[in-house]
Amino acid sequence: MKNDYYFHGSDLEEIQAKYNVKAEDITNFAANVNPLGISPKLRKELSNNLDIITSYPDREYTNLKNAISEYASTNVENILVGNGTSELISSFIRYISPKKAVIIGPTYSEYEHEVSKTGGKAYYLPLYEDDDFKLNIDYLLNKLDKSTDMLIVCNPNNPTSSCIDLVTMRHILDACKENHIYVLIDETYIEFVNAIEAYSAVSLSQFYSNVIILRSTSKFFACPGLRLGYAITGNPDLIAQINRTSKPWMINSIASEAGQIMFRDKDYIDKTIKLINKERDYCYNAFLELDGFKPYKPFANFMLVKINKKNLTSNDVFENAIKKGMLIRDCSTFPFLTSEYFRFCFMKHEENVKLIDCI
Amino acid sequence: MKNDYYFHGSDLEEIQAKYNVKAEDITNFAANVNPLGISPKLRKELSNNLDIITSYPDREYTNLKNAISEYASTNVENILVGNGTSELISSFIRYISPKKAVIIGPTYSEYEHEVSKTGGKAYYLPLYEDDDFKLNIDYLLNKLDKSTDMLIVCNPNNPTSSCIDLVTMRHILDACKENHIYVLIDETYIEFVNAIEAYSAVSLSQFYSNVIILRSTSKFFACPGLRLGYAITGNPDLIAQINRTSKPWMINSIASEAGQIMFRDKDYIDKTIKLINKERDYCYNAFLELDGFKPYKPFANFMLVKINKKNLTSNDVFENAIKKGMLIRDCSTFPFLTSEYFRFCFMKHEENVKLIDCI
Repeated sequence: MKNDYYFHGSDLEEIQAKYNVKAEDITNFAANVNPLGISPKLRKELSNNLDIITSYPDREYTNLKNAISEYASTNVENILVGNGTSELISSFIRYISPKKAVIIGPTYSEYEHEVSKTGGKAYYLPLYEDDDFKLNIDYLLNKLDKSTDMLIVCNPNNPTSSCIDLVTMRHILDACKENHIYVLIDETYIEFVNAIEAYSAVSLSQFYSNVIILRSTSKFFACPGLRLGYAITGNPDLIAQINRTSKPWMINSIASEAGQIMFRDKDYIDKTIKLINKERDYCYNAFLELDGFKPYKPFANFMLVKINKKNLTSNDVFENAIKKGMLIRDCSTFPFLTSEYFRFCFMKHEENVKLIDCI
Repeated sequence: MKNDYYFHGSDLEEIQAKYNVKAEDITNFAANVNPLGISPKLRKELSNNLDIITSYPDREYTNLKNAISEYASTNVENILVGNGTSELISSFIRYISPKKAVIIGPTYSEYEHEVSKTGGKAYYLPLYEDDDFKLNIDYLLNKLDKSTDMLIVCNPNNPTSSCIDLVTMRHILDACKENHIYVLIDETYIEFVNAIEAYSAVSLSQFYSNVIILRSTSKFFACPGLRLGYAITGNPDLIAQINRTSKPWMINSIASEAGQIMFRDKDYIDKTIKLINKERDYCYNAFLELDGFKPYKPFANFMLVKINKKNLTSNDVFENAIKKGMLIRDCSTFPFLTSEYFRFCFMKHEENVKLIDCI
């Protein structure tokens, strides 16, 4: 099933109509979703256990939180579950209600959108092409002061695929703690990173009460339709406050059951990491050798590429690819990016070969 | 699967421990859930189609709303879907944010709870035992004036199982319209009513812009774990306002898919109505003949009973039943009710016979 991860619903229909390709024939390099699809174990166990919908979910989601706790190496009481990461982003931003939020960008547009919904103002701290879109930590630390209420970081970052390591993150958290700044770290893509323990901030949540880490199952576990996200924070007050305004049941019984299966599915997790590590290396090296393109070193399961050819735009690349049934992401709509940039995620080997051949 | 519909999670564990009965041996007469369980067709089609979780739900839920529209005989644009009725109750009460809400009671406690969460005050308009808990329409109309912002009615009402017919509802809506009062009608149990067309307010939603009707799949379709509820209102502004504050995806792909199957599952719907009609008559007549108990005429899939025996309380009846593996609802905690009242829902025939024998 290859489908409308990024171009939700009507968008994909537009693409089908415009380029005369069928949805089922499209390989989606734009969705950043694990190309393995959902694990056979998950499919089998869920289908054998569908009668769980006859029971209300446990209001505390105890079994689910236990599974997350083992998987993410954190305490059960540090975990909040939510109807997708989008709900959690919204809940935390609404609760903190920052007058001034600093967002490291270019990045996912939803953070800015939510900040403005609460009446706050979002300021982008730009990552520069001159730095290959890597964070300049001194520049960031200089910008943080008591006027800022919240810092939002996507790590690894979408669409740059750059990643902040744990040592650097500690510096950021120290500066934010000193200035009473909440830090929201969206780790939607962190499980794809090679050596997660050197990058994920989960281990720091026990030392910093100002940090909230968000995780998703949509991308790594290939199930955006399940709407299962979770947050990790070592701040019990924050958890209590968000819980107080939450619905009695944030996620349904099937999402709760699915989580318990997937977080313990070591075989699927290992296979995914192995595949992505291999294909990331393959694609990065292939683009290093391609004339007229500059790939930025990817940490997540996707890569940002700059076009260095006159008269070739990201829309051209997009159109060439979609005509051959491959959907990539034209990045010209991201703040700070232009029609020189596109992004694609790593699919199965033969699909990646096909994409690179086409470019 | 007989389980913790009413006594969520830990409560059922308490009951197991206190009365030394295993959860799987308990027949749940307290949950008001369709005793047929989920339909075999739903189970089969869902389990064959679990890969829908690899796709984001359609943001507009077009196919789901089409199915609801046919099922509930209303226009697609009048429909809102939500993560269970509890989310919709919360969303509408928050949006209307009534300073003064009138609730016809005794009823489900969640309405009052949500009103007080928004800072409003809830006033119960009591149903009287002298009227067999039927609504006194003149009394209600007398109480409604411009100081009221919202009227909340559960129809059929839980726990009385009484039901307001369409002619009476029209009088209520006229009075409310005149006084600028929003009316929230929770029709969670309406599909169990014999001759739904004479009781459901859906047909009135085209004439009254002040009415919101809530429907659930938890009880009639036996799937509280799915968290699939919907609202019907003929007021487009209200829909637009609620949509604006909603998450991008209110329910997950599986709930969306399940809805499309269940609302068209005529066989299951017919079987349920037939079973409940039969068992409602059977139980009501059996209690009419029982000495020392007064049943109130039930319209939904459950019945309220008054104990007219000295030295017998609802807790005694509860304890007698649970020791034999039957969980009923002691109604002493409902406002306006006392330890003379209990409620039970209609299960399969042999189970109902067993319950009546025990009482």
